[in-house]
Amino acid sequence: MSSALDFYFDFSSPYGYFAAMKIDDLAAKYGRQVAWHPILLGAIFKTTGAVPLVEIPLKGNYVRHDLVRTARLHQIPFKLPENFPISTLHTARAMLWINNNLGKTKAENFAKAAYQAYFVEGINIGEPEQIAQIATQLGMDGVTMVNTSSSEEIKNQLKTEIASAQNKGVFGSPYVIVDGEPFWGFDRFDQIELFLKNGQI
Amino acid sequence: MSSALDFYFDFSSPYGYFAAMKIDDLAAKYGRQVAWHPILLGAIFKTTGAVPLVEIPLKGNYVRHDLVRTARLHQIPFKLPENFPISTLHTARAMLWINNNLGKTKAENFAKAAYQAYFVEGINIGEPEQIAQIATQLGMDGVTMVNTSSSEEIKNQLKTEIASAQNKGVFGSPYVIVDGEPFWGFDRFDQIELFLKNGQI
Repeated sequence: MSSALDFYFDFSSPYGYFAAMKIDDLAAKYGRQVAWHPILLGAIFKTTGAVPLVEIPLKGNYVRHDLVRTARLHQIPFKLPENFPISTLHTARAMLWINNNLGKTKAENFAKAAYQAYFVEGINIGEPEQIAQIATQLGMDGVTMVNTSSSEEIKNQLKTEIASAQNKGVFGSPYVIVDGEPFWGFDRFDQIELFLKNGQI
Repeated sequence: MSSALDFYFDFSSPYGYFAAMKIDDLAAKYGRQVAWHPILLGAIFKTTGAVPLVEIPLKGNYVRHDLVRTARLHQIPFKLPENFPISTLHTARAMLWINNNLGKTKAENFAKAAYQAYFVEGINIGEPEQIAQIATQLGMDGVTMVNTSSSEEIKNQLKTEIASAQNKGVFGSPYVIVDGEPFWGFDRFDQIELFLKNGQI
């Protein structure tokens, strides 16, 4: 079987949310799995000197417009949250905890639910109480999860994941690596599909 | 007749070059003209705090890869020049001079020839001698053009053009405005086509 697509994303990234809504179907179409990797762009932006898109003069306004238009074109429900961007440290740790304790599928379900809570309903998914509630709604013990996902083990695991991503060249969200070939941005999903289809690009 | 597509580009922008190779055909397909606007990103980056793509850690390496891959996919000849990025102040002024004195078509022919000289042959199109030669090869009096394109009139015209672009929200290259709808990046040519086709997006 072919190797999984490595999908890197920040829970506060709207284009990462778009990617999260589409990547499983895209991969499945070509018989591939997806390995979901939550990262924190804040940590990586210290290296690249980048700042959040919507905070940039001129570009910020454009991006707000582009997000709504792109969501509409891809038929993805979307509303830019009032609290944006937010720190998603606890969200990323929660996903790792679920992955470690309940498995990959539940972790991915949590990721999708968290993204939708934030970018559809405007729920602040950076806050532990909200994270617990999302997990609970998925049938997990959300309170225990939140209380134990700030362990040293999980903290270090997230740091290691982010360092590993950065070593692979990841600098934004979404960022997808397929058989060593890197793709940055939801814009590149057409190129990812070509690559999956033809084995080259 | 419908209004022209406003196409903003910096002569040192490789994605601007890709756009320049494709935009006339795209517009013509929907019965539209293109108004070509050379700008200087350096001036606009002072507002947005942006830096040239390839100078950014991690992102720079990715962009170098993405450029080659994107050019190949769109069958556009491309080689990243050794001198990159460069100041294209003189190139932009030359295009305005040609537009003023010889008309829009010759100015666009010059723009395409300059872009190709830079991104295919690696010729430094920031230098007046090279600019003169490109114009001469197109049957213009390149030497006279270069000698007179640094007049106060042209200098002020370029400043006004850039200020006007910035007032319209332009912050990158390529940037296209169609009937008031803004599109940033060669990535957005599929959305431009949808907009031209359907009159909305």
